[in-house]
Amino acid sequence: MFEGHRGTFMGARSAYEAAGVVLLGAPMDWTASFRAGARHGPAAVRVVSEGLEEYSPYLDRDLDQCLFHDAGDIPLPPGDVGASLRAIAQAAAGIIDDGKFPLLLGGEHLVTWPVVQEMAKRHPDLAVVQLDAHADLLDDYLGLTWSHATVMRRVSEVIGPGNLFQFGIRSCTRAELAYARQHTRLAPVAGGDLLGSLGESLSGLRDRPVYVTLDIDVVDPAFAPGTGTAEPGGCTSREILLAVHLLSGLNLVGFDLVEVCPPCDQSQRTALLAAAIVREVVLGR
Amino acid sequence: MFEGHRGTFMGARSAYEAAGVVLLGAPMDWTASFRAGARHGPAAVRVVSEGLEEYSPYLDRDLDQCLFHDAGDIPLPPGDVGASLRAIAQAAAGIIDDGKFPLLLGGEHLVTWPVVQEMAKRHPDLAVVQLDAHADLLDDYLGLTWSHATVMRRVSEVIGPGNLFQFGIRSCTRAELAYARQHTRLAPVAGGDLLGSLGESLSGLRDRPVYVTLDIDVVDPAFAPGTGTAEPGGCTSREILLAVHLLSGLNLVGFDLVEVCPPCDQSQRTALLAAAIVREVVLGR
Amino acid sequence: MFEGHRGTFMGARSAYEAAGVVLLGAPMDWTASFRAGARHGPAAVRVVSEGLEEYSPYLDRDLDQCLFHDAGDIPLPPGDVGASLRAIAQAAAGIIDDGKFPLLLGGEHLVTWPVVQEMAKRHPDLAVVQLDAHADLLDDYLGLTWSHATVMRRVSEVIGPGNLFQFGIRSCTRAELAYARQHTRLAPVAGGDLLGSLGESLSGLRDRPVYVTLDIDVVDPAFAPGTGTAEPGGCTSREILLAVHLLSGLNLVGFDLVEVCPPCDQSQRTALLAAAIVREVVLGR
Amino acid sequence: MFEGHRGTFMGARSAYEAAGVVLLGAPMDWTASFRAGARHGPAAVRVVSEGLEEYSPYLDRDLDQCLFHDAGDIPLPPGDVGASLRAIAQAAAGIIDDGKFPLLLGGEHLVTWPVVQEMAKRHPDLAVVQLDAHADLLDDYLGLTWSHATVMRRVSEVIGPGNLFQFGIRSCTRAELAYARQHTRLAPVAGGDLLGSLGESLSGLRDRPVYVTLDIDVVDPAFAPGTGTAEPGGCTSREILLAVHLLSGLNLVGFDLVEVCPPCDQSQRTALLAAAIVREVVLGR
Amino acid sequence: MFEGHRGTFMGARSAYEAAGVVLLGAPMDWTASFRAGARHGPAAVRVVSEGLEEYSPYLDRDLDQCLFHDAGDIPLPPGDVGASLRAIAQAAAGIIDDGKFPLLLGGEHLVTWPVVQEMAKRHPDLAVVQLDAHADLLDDYLGLTWSHATVMRRVSEVIGPGNLFQFGIRSCTRAELAYARQHTRLAPVAGGDLLGSLGESLSGLRDRPVYVTLDIDVVDPAFAPGTGTAEPGGCTSREILLAVHLLSGLNLVGFDLVEVCPPCDQSQRTALLAAAIVREVVLGR
Amino acid sequence: MFEGHRGTFMGARSAYEAAGVVLLGAPMDWTASFRAGARHGPAAVRVVSEGLEEYSPYLDRDLDQCLFHDAGDIPLPPGDVGASLRAIAQAAAGIIDDGKFPLLLGGEHLVTWPVVQEMAKRHPDLAVVQLDAHADLLDDYLGLTWSHATVMRRVSEVIGPGNLFQFGIRSCTRAELAYARQHTRLAPVAGGDLLGSLGESLSGLRDRPVYVTLDIDVVDPAFAPGTGTAEPGGCTSREILLAVHLLSGLNLVGFDLVEVCPPCDQSQRTALLAAAIVREVVLGR
Repeated sequence: MFEGHRGTFMGARSAYEAAGVVLLGAPMDWTASFRAGARHGPAAVRVVSEGLEEYSPYLDRDLDQCLFHDAGDIPLPPGDVGASLRAIAQAAAGIIDDGKFPLLLGGEHLVTWPVVQEMAKRHPDLAVVQLDAHADLLDDYLGLTWSHATVMRRVSEVIGPGNLFQFGIRSCTRAELAYARQHTRLAPVAGGDLLGSLGESLSGLRDRPVYVTLDIDVVDPAFAPGTGTAEPGGCTSREILLAVHLLSGLNLVGFDLVEVCPPCDQSQRTALLAAAIVREVVLGR
Repeated sequence: MFEGHRGTFMGARSAYEAAGVVLLGAPMDWTASFRAGARHGPAAVRVVSEGLEEYSPYLDRDLDQCLFHDAGDIPLPPGDVGASLRAIAQAAAGIIDDGKFPLLLGGEHLVTWPVVQEMAKRHPDLAVVQLDAHADLLDDYLGLTWSHATVMRRVSEVIGPGNLFQFGIRSCTRAELAYARQHTRLAPVAGGDLLGSLGESLSGLRDRPVYVTLDIDVVDPAFAPGTGTAEPGGCTSREILLAVHLLSGLNLVGFDLVEVCPPCDQSQRTALLAAAIVREVVLGR
Repeated sequence: MFEGHRGTFMGARSAYEAAGVVLLGAPMDWTASFRAGARHGPAAVRVVSEGLEEYSPYLDRDLDQCLFHDAGDIPLPPGDVGASLRAIAQAAAGIIDDGKFPLLLGGEHLVTWPVVQEMAKRHPDLAVVQLDAHADLLDDYLGLTWSHATVMRRVSEVIGPGNLFQFGIRSCTRAELAYARQHTRLAPVAGGDLLGSLGESLSGLRDRPVYVTLDIDVVDPAFAPGTGTAEPGGCTSREILLAVHLLSGLNLVGFDLVEVCPPCDQSQRTALLAAAIVREVVLGR
Repeated sequence: MFEGHRGTFMGARSAYEAAGVVLLGAPMDWTASFRAGARHGPAAVRVVSEGLEEYSPYLDRDLDQCLFHDAGDIPLPPGDVGASLRAIAQAAAGIIDDGKFPLLLGGEHLVTWPVVQEMAKRHPDLAVVQLDAHADLLDDYLGLTWSHATVMRRVSEVIGPGNLFQFGIRSCTRAELAYARQHTRLAPVAGGDLLGSLGESLSGLRDRPVYVTLDIDVVDPAFAPGTGTAEPGGCTSREILLAVHLLSGLNLVGFDLVEVCPPCDQSQRTALLAAAIVREVVLGR
Repeated sequence: MFEGHRGTFMGARSAYEAAGVVLLGAPMDWTASFRAGARHGPAAVRVVSEGLEEYSPYLDRDLDQCLFHDAGDIPLPPGDVGASLRAIAQAAAGIIDDGKFPLLLGGEHLVTWPVVQEMAKRHPDLAVVQLDAHADLLDDYLGLTWSHATVMRRVSEVIGPGNLFQFGIRSCTRAELAYARQHTRLAPVAGGDLLGSLGESLSGLRDRPVYVTLDIDVVDPAFAPGTGTAEPGGCTSREILLAVHLLSGLNLVGFDLVEVCPPCDQSQRTALLAAAIVREVVLGR
Repeated sequence: MFEGHRGTFMGARSAYEAAGVVLLGAPMDWTASFRAGARHGPAAVRVVSEGLEEYSPYLDRDLDQCLFHDAGDIPLPPGDVGASLRAIAQAAAGIIDDGKFPLLLGGEHLVTWPVVQEMAKRHPDLAVVQLDAHADLLDDYLGLTWSHATVMRRVSEVIGPGNLFQFGIRSCTRAELAYARQHTRLAPVAGGDLLGSLGESLSGLRDRPVYVTLDIDVVDPAFAPGTGTAEPGGCTSREILLAVHLLSGLNLVGFDLVEVCPPCDQSQRTALLAAAIVREVVLGR
């Protein structure tokens, strides 16, 4: 009768078949070690997206010029890590094989791994760009091989040495740092200049398929308090938007935005910032 | 692709044409005098409804046995009272004329008036049952003839003396009380026994078309803190559910549930109670 | 120019000279041992009072029939217990000597002591009725003789054995209980029937000057979460209103309502219940 | 240097060896389907316990008369259900075999299963009493055999037909109800009288080893808003305390209190009610 | 008796007649389309203002050197846009005609229009400076000609092309941008340098009567989360204070600060920032 | 049995005897004039510290390389300022005389005074560095000589003219400014560059014993909303961490971090920032 309750991101109406970009949620937070709630991230980002304009004055583009589809959330069995990762892999593989750009909304950071794995099968020279407060390079965490705190170690193992580019890191262990020095390309840690580091790395990333994973905690808790493991000393909302614009100039093949944890932010400005980032990514395709 | 984001009440999927009960939201709070936010009521009730079972052990009935349709929210221009009331009237009239049972989610209490007006045109012997903490019988309020504080005066004028049955009232002015004594059937005020009063009135309501308007503030703020003008001393959640079961035995022709104000209740238990009431009303048809 | 910001309780406008009841705040919480914030109680009660009607359907009386004055808050030096108690005593003494009824808003429970002391000087046969979850009968607390946890011991010492009537108590130490058995009149503790106990005691309180001190934590945290030391198992909002009506039939000489702690209750329903109680006390004079 | 930061329940200091009652936390919420956060339950209950007295006026007993030990939290790997259940089983088995009474703090309801399993091995005639809003009798839930929504089905299978006594249930599916009618002893559902039903069942439970599992959502959300899947229409805080006192008269062999979800309750009164229940259970041994 | 409850901004005591600057509230949010609550803005700004010093170290001036009057809030009928705008116009006209400087506290942005209209009647060469995240240049919005989203279009029509100077804009539609290019002076959008743009425009604004309208959402949600339609990527609290100092050097004839929405910010730092801005504006006169 | 509930800062396990740095809490807020709650600061900082790594990538050092002891909280009688200050002095004196570095967690700013007093007895050439939004140089405040608003005046009197270095100040009275110009070294106020000012002062502080007092409100409320008297226009979390690194190069003899007020910050990012600062101070020794 009325049209008020579609519940898609910014009211996305494009059919899957026509779309070039496909948004899908991976509402999983089973391995969150501190504060859970990232499972509610995709829903919150969709809800607050109605407060944003569909037009980006940053890019001078409008969503009505884009074909993007919101595929909803992947059904994931609570507490079953293995089955959840398989379900995400399958969903991502379908989108990739249909020639579309997957834009994944977490959920915890572990959701990145199955998507990168599928990407790497299809792009042997894949580079992964990680924007994050934490290195996530532990080999195991509380006895878990697959965890939000080990995910980028697993990613690094999949894509091989030198193909993981890490920016914004300001929390890690000594062991993670040692691993990073050998196996990843780690921008200066702890208070380094995010945009500067990113700018310097761009030339090395051109002409390659690039997957971006953005953990919202790369942003300072003042701008993004809604995350499970906040870390002071991060970048501003303006800087993260500029970073996304810089990355959009590359040959992106996929993007995820993870660790938005709505129960930790009653103002919902974290979800709102995430929605703005998603809009810029879509419009930048 | 997936089915996660329908956003209807308890995932209602029945088509409008097949449905006997039609849920629709009236997200209006323009005349709220204390704390606004009831406009967010319908959305919140839908969101939390996924935490409830579709089966009611109270009634031993399941939503899969019912044909009910969630028609979404009526588009209402913010701050334009007249246009909003006209839009609600038009939407209600359509549902009534299609032979269906309208179940309206407010929004502020003023949304009751256009629905009752349409009902009264079709049911000359209409009785209205009001469950509310406030009499809402002022003749004007802050210069406004149409207001959440005058709405039942307007309703009383439409349906005529003796046809408005008021329960749970524990806040009013002396003038409202005087009006009630002349024009409405007012159960004992201020701490009276809601279920007892209701039970005594039932016989007089049988064999008549009855419209029920339930202002959630009839419930005590402990059980329903999410409302704009809370009033201590109300009934419990258990009592309001029993009251709804009592009323379901009558010849109901319509129902509304108003003044759920989500920003006033971070626990969302007010919306959850409202959702449980809605489920019982639907299952009681 | 406009009149919107008087900030008195329910917009009280009577002059001090004309008033029979004088409301004054004692915004002190220096000895709070768990969660501070009761200093903000008087302000919060005044703010939310604008959401209540001036007419009480319980008593069929209206504030426009009463002469009551809101004297504002007593200036109290933060952290200086002695000076604060002296200031409260002086303010209370003035009101009493002017032949008026003092209605004190705490602040922590310790504010009761200076008022009772002044009362006892003028009423040798004074009885004190305490509605409270805690006995507050410790002899010292964390080394403090004057504390929210010792206040009723001090009161009992002032008014003498058998003159303190305690209702609603459900938290105490074994030593407090022993003291109570010897020196106070303690209604059955721990889940006893507040209204029943009160009713039985009324006859013994008639024909005496009675001062009432109501610690809002006598009410269950569901109805009054905004207090520093909540205790489950209390009465309902309806029961506390009925209790106040019962007490209003006595020869009351003063009343205080303490331990409303607004930062502990974002819904502000605790302050609202307190405002309703204050209204009923004023209208019951 | 100082002693302020022990962090045990009510500052429990008894050594494990001497203790008769052992408190231990199972901070797991991996299968929570709606709102996670029960993993923070044990910590929150310990923190707020310092606001309660060690003396119970209900039982006229003091914790200094009891030997109980707070064993802290069982380390559980986030998101690994199998390993977590094994760790809980092992911890519980140790306590039971040492002849002590285990008092488990959840965490989600699934933590009950490994404890009951260990209990049943040692007590072939074990009865389990469940106080809960939900039947938790699904055979599988979102593809999961072991879930908070299937836990009592698994428990029922372990202890055999007729040995599970369910009270307070007001949410279930039709299939669960059918199962219950065949395999469990289900008190009247949906608004039944908790204390009445419990009283009637007590005689049948005497002379048997009884394990009690108390899901805090048996209490109404007004009194216990801090739970992941709240359901309106529950009992009061006073009723649940009385229920615990009734059960303490039986031959209890273990007790758990689950589903306290602190992020859902900023007032922390849910954790406070849980702490009061724990105190009464300990003092009732 | 005591003086604690005047409730004016920073305890302003100057009489209207003597004052050069007059503060008045316009507590209206009837056309808010997303989250209402700006009606509570003026009250919140007054309450938190007591936490600020009356001396500004930025300007080396003290409020005791200024004659400013707090006229309270204009009574506005909830939900009646036309009557509300007329009431604001009348109040503003009175202040202007008395030769005083109006300092208006919103309320939603629509309150700017009646004040500018009165200003423009008296100052034919009026320039308006808008600090805002949103262009607010829609011709109609949800069918409304007068709305918070159309207000600056209406203002632009009143003062004529080229007389509206817009800074900080980072959200708009393509159509608004087209309108702005023709009719307003729009500083570079989307992440531009607020202070730089402002500095460049100052010379063109000298020697003209200038009215400033400051929508608090020009500031980033990290610094000002309490607003109805937040937009990431804004300026800092330090930058907005510097911007106000720059503007104070002009020939200001009026100022408003709008869209402070207290229910969206429990920390109340948005209201506090607004209070600091108001102090700087007053001291800069 | 398990080790989950030690409750020390980052699980500190060093014995007092072995430790070089001793952390101790001073949970006092008796003289807080606006919003109380700083008494809960030490507990909150300890709780959230478990979300941080023990390794600092800023300093390339790990807590396992440091010997630091968490001595818990000094027992302080609520509301007794004199006894509390004596207890703090005694605790600090013991630590200093044992040759250890005291790291004090407030609590309100007044806790600084007894520590500085003990320090000054032992270091006649002591310099004190204050990072703060407020000058805290009043001679008396609400009649109190010892108050959070007078504390640095008292400190200045103890250490003598020219030995107090103040940075970040953006709120004061004219009288405080006059005092500062004569008796303290005040960096440019109101929006000055914290790091620049600090850098310029470092040479003058070398070769002297330096005590640092850091009032968390020196940071902007966006980054540190959890404080009793917030003031807009402060530094970022990144800047305060850099400031601490600069200061760590000096000959520090003690450090305190005060005015973290957890009830004012539900996100707990203020406590988290405080914990990160404490870690950097410990690792910088």
